[in-house]
Amino acid sequence: MLPFKTLIVPDKKSAIPVYLQIANKFVTLISEGTLKPGSALPSTREMASLLQLHRKTIVAAYEELFVQDWIETIPRKGVLVSQHLPDIKPRIFKANKKRSAYGLATGFSLPDNILNSSFRINASGHRLIINDGFPDIRIAPVDLLVKEYRRLCHRPAVQRLAIYGEQAGSMNLRKELVRFLADTRGIDCQPSNMLMSRGAQMSLFIAAGIILRPGATVIVAEPNYHLADQIFQQYGAKLVKVPVDHNGIDVDMIEKICKKKKPDLLYIIPHHHHPTTVTLGGDRRMKLLQLIRQYNLAVIEDDYDYDFHYSSSPILPLASADHGGNVIYIGSLTKTLSPSMRFGYMIAAENFINEAIRLRRMINIRGDDLMEEALATLFHDGSMQRHLKKSVKLYHQRRDYLCALLKKELGDVVSFEVPQGGMAIWVKFNKKYSLPAISRKASQKGLYISDGSAYNIGSVNQNAIRMGF
Amino acid sequence: MLPFKTLIVPDKKSAIPVYLQIANKFVTLISEGTLKPGSALPSTREMASLLQLHRKTIVAAYEELFVQDWIETIPRKGVLVSQHLPDIKPRIFKANKKRSAYGLATGFSLPDNILNSSFRINASGHRLIINDGFPDIRIAPVDLLVKEYRRLCHRPAVQRLAIYGEQAGSMNLRKELVRFLADTRGIDCQPSNMLMSRGAQMSLFIAAGIILRPGATVIVAEPNYHLADQIFQQYGAKLVKVPVDHNGIDVDMIEKICKKKKPDLLYIIPHHHHPTTVTLGGDRRMKLLQLIRQYNLAVIEDDYDYDFHYSSSPILPLASADHGGNVIYIGSLTKTLSPSMRFGYMIAAENFINEAIRLRRMINIRGDDLMEEALATLFHDGSMQRHLKKSVKLYHQRRDYLCALLKKELGDVVSFEVPQGGMAIWVKFNKKYSLPAISRKASQKGLYISDGSAYNIGSVNQNAIRMGF
Repeated sequence: MLPFKTLIVPDKKSAIPVYLQIANKFVTLISEGTLKPGSALPSTREMASLLQLHRKTIVAAYEELFVQDWIETIPRKGVLVSQHLPDIKPRIFKANKKRSAYGLATGFSLPDNILNSSFRINASGHRLIINDGFPDIRIAPVDLLVKEYRRLCHRPAVQRLAIYGEQAGSMNLRKELVRFLADTRGIDCQPSNMLMSRGAQMSLFIAAGIILRPGATVIVAEPNYHLADQIFQQYGAKLVKVPVDHNGIDVDMIEKICKKKKPDLLYIIPHHHHPTTVTLGGDRRMKLLQLIRQYNLAVIEDDYDYDFHYSSSPILPLASADHGGNVIYIGSLTKTLSPSMRFGYMIAAENFINEAIRLRRMINIRGDDLMEEALATLFHDGSMQRHLKKSVKLYHQRRDYLCALLKKELGDVVSFEVPQGGMAIWVKFNKKYSLPAISRKASQKGLYISDGSAYNIGSVNQNAIRMGF
Repeated sequence: MLPFKTLIVPDKKSAIPVYLQIANKFVTLISEGTLKPGSALPSTREMASLLQLHRKTIVAAYEELFVQDWIETIPRKGVLVSQHLPDIKPRIFKANKKRSAYGLATGFSLPDNILNSSFRINASGHRLIINDGFPDIRIAPVDLLVKEYRRLCHRPAVQRLAIYGEQAGSMNLRKELVRFLADTRGIDCQPSNMLMSRGAQMSLFIAAGIILRPGATVIVAEPNYHLADQIFQQYGAKLVKVPVDHNGIDVDMIEKICKKKKPDLLYIIPHHHHPTTVTLGGDRRMKLLQLIRQYNLAVIEDDYDYDFHYSSSPILPLASADHGGNVIYIGSLTKTLSPSMRFGYMIAAENFINEAIRLRRMINIRGDDLMEEALATLFHDGSMQRHLKKSVKLYHQRRDYLCALLKKELGDVVSFEVPQGGMAIWVKFNKKYSLPAISRKASQKGLYISDGSAYNIGSVNQNAIRMGF
C-alpha cells in the first residue's frame, strides 16, 4: 500500500472542502501513474483511520472519484482504480473486425415527422448545474418508501399482489389520493375517476392520445411546456397558440377562437405555468370555467406542482369546480419524492378513465403495484403529508433566498417575478446579454446553465431560463 | 380481549390448512358481530403464544384476512377489524348530495376507434388461478435488488444520479446487458444500440410508433399476442394475418406478400410464440433472414422470454444474424424478476434508437435510474445469472410435471405440444368441451380459468388457453 498518510495532507483551512482535496489528490496520483489501474484502495474505514478524518469525509471523496469514473467498486474485491480511465477515451467494447448488423443504420427508411428536442442537461463535466426545478431527493422520504416496499415483498400475499394488481393502479393508493386531493385542493372524485401512471408525462400522453386524431386543433399557451407541444404534434394535431401574461393565459382570446370553431382540446397549466411560473388569475379562471361548460370544451389541466405553493390563499384547480366532466386533471407525486420515482395520476370522468386504461395497457401493461402499495401506506400513516409540509417550508425559504440573491447580484442583468409556487424562477435576461454566450462561458468554468433554446419553441426569443431552487 | 384460546381450536388432522381454519374462524366471529369493526386483534406473536402455534401460521392467517379485506393494519395501533366489512357492500366515500363534476360522463364526445380488450383476470373471489404464464416472484432476487436500491439511495451521489440519468437508461445496466446478450444469444451490439423501457410492452409501443403511420400494413401471426395487434391498430395500421403451424409462422406466405407489395412492418415472436408457444424452425429462420435483407423489411422481433428455454440447443434470435440493421429486438427482464417490476429493452440501429429516445421522453420522461443501477449491480456480481440458472431448472421441472399431469388427468379432453421454453403450455380443448362453459363452472368453485376469448382475436375459435406453470 502507498504511504497515503504522507501523500495526502488535507489543508483544513482551505476554501476547498477536505473531501474534494482528497479526491483531487487521488486524481493526481492516478493520472501520474502512481496508482495503477486495477489497484485496490484502502477501505473508507482504513483510510479514515490513516488520515485521522471522519469516515464520512472519505466516503464523500470516494463518491466524487466514483462519479468521475476514476474508481470502481468490485464486489468482494473492494474499491479499485478504474480499468478504463476517464482521460483515455474509454472504448469499452472491442470493435469487431466484421461489422455487427447493428453497426449500420436501418435498411428501411424512417418516416420523418418525429420532432427533435434540444432539451437536455449534460451533467458530465459540470460541477454545478442550474436546472429547471427538480425536487431535492435528500429531503424526500425515499428511504421510508423503500423500507415499506421491502416489507411488502416479504409478505405471503406478495405473489397475488404482484401478478393481479388493479388495472387503474393500486386501489389503496387511489383511495388515499382521493382523500388527499379533497383535503388539499377540493377535488371531489372517486377512485374510479383515477388512473395511476408513470409520472404526469404518461398521463398527458394517454389523455391526448384519446382525444386527438390527425388534423385536430389544440389551444396551447405560448410559451408552453415543450414536451406537451411535442405530444400534440406527434398525434398530428395543429397547435393554436395563445399568449401568456402575468395573469396567465389570455382567456378572451380562447373565447374568440371557440366562437369561430371549437378546438378539440385546451391544454392549460393554471398554477406555476411552465416555463413562466405565472398563475391564472381568479377572474380569468371563472370566465374559463364558463367557456368550458358552454362549449363542452375538452380540457387537460396539468397541475404538476400544485402541492408546492407559498402564498396563503392558493387558487383552486379548475378540476375542483363545476366543469361538466370536461376537465382531465393531471397531477404528479414525483415532485414530492424523487425525479427517478415516477408517480403520476389522471382524474377524469369514468368513461374517459376506461378508455385511458385501455391505452395505458398498450403502453405500459401495469405500474409497479408493490411500490404503489408502499406509497399508499406512507399516505395512510401521514408520512407523505408531514414530508410535504416540511418541504414546502424549505422550498419557500429557498425561493426567497434565491430571489434576494438574484436581485442583489444580478439586478441589472435579469428581471423576474417572484413565483407563487413551484421550484423555479423564470429569469429573463436583459437583451444585451445573450444566453447562448453566457451558457458557453459558464460551461468552461464547470457551471451548467441552459442556453434558453428549449424555451424558444415559438417564434419569440425569450432570452430567459428557469432557475430551480 | 376475547377468549381466543377457547374460541379458536384448530384441527390439525383436517385437510384444511391450520392457517385457513384460523382465518375462517375469524370471519365467523366478525360476521356474527362478536368481533366489532375497529376492534384490535392480538399481535401475531401474542396469538401464536395463546394458541401455541408457530407465529408463521398466524401471520398467514392474518394475511388471508387482510387479502379478503376483513382486517386492516393501522400504524401504531396494530391489526384492527376493518371498518368497512366485505359483506356490507363497501361505500367508502359518501355520495354527495350535489353530484361531483366527475360523476358525469365527459361533456365532449370521444373518438370511437379505441379498441376494447376483454383480457383481464379477475383475481378476487378466486382461490386458485390458472394464468397466462407469470414468473414466480417468490424465487426472484427481488430482495437483493431492493437492498441494493436502498444502498444506492444512501450514497451522496444519489441526487445527481436521480436527476441527470442517461436518456437511454442506466449506462451501467446497458453495458451489463450487452455482455449478457452476447453470452446468452449471440447478439452483437453496443450500449448505444439499446434503450431501456418499462417492460417489453413499452418498447413495442415505441418501436411501432416510429415505423407506423395511418394506412401502413403490418404482417402478424394468427393468432397473435393481442396487445401487439391492438397497438398496430391504434396507430391506424392494417393487419395482414399469416398462419402459424407447429414450425412457427408461414414464411413462404410472407414472401408472397412481399412480392406483391412490401409491408411496412413484420412483427414476429420466433421463440415460444404467444399464445401458441411454438418456435420458428431453423430453415424458416434462414429463409426469413434472406427476405429481410432482400426487401429491407422492418422487423420487430419480440423475444420476451428467450431466457427460459429448456432444450439443449436453442435457435438464436434473428437479431444475432446478418439482418442489415433491419431487426428491432425487444426483450424483457420482467420475466426474470416480478410482473410488477417492469424492465424491458429495445435493440436497434443507432439512428432508430435516437428516434426511440425522443418518443420515449414524450411517453415517460425517464425510467427509474436508481432501480436500473441496482439491477446493473446484480448483473455485475452474477446474482441475476445465478438466479436465471436456478429458475430455468425449476420451470423446466414444472413444465414436465404439468405436461404429465395434463396427459394423465385430461388426456381425452385436451391436446398440446410440449413447449421448448417459456412459462406456459398452449392447451387446446376438444371441440366437445366449450371453454366459456368450463370457465363459468370453474369460477363457481373458486377456480379462475380463462374462457379463451382473449385468444380468439381472429375469426378462428381456438378453443384453447395458455396454462402457466
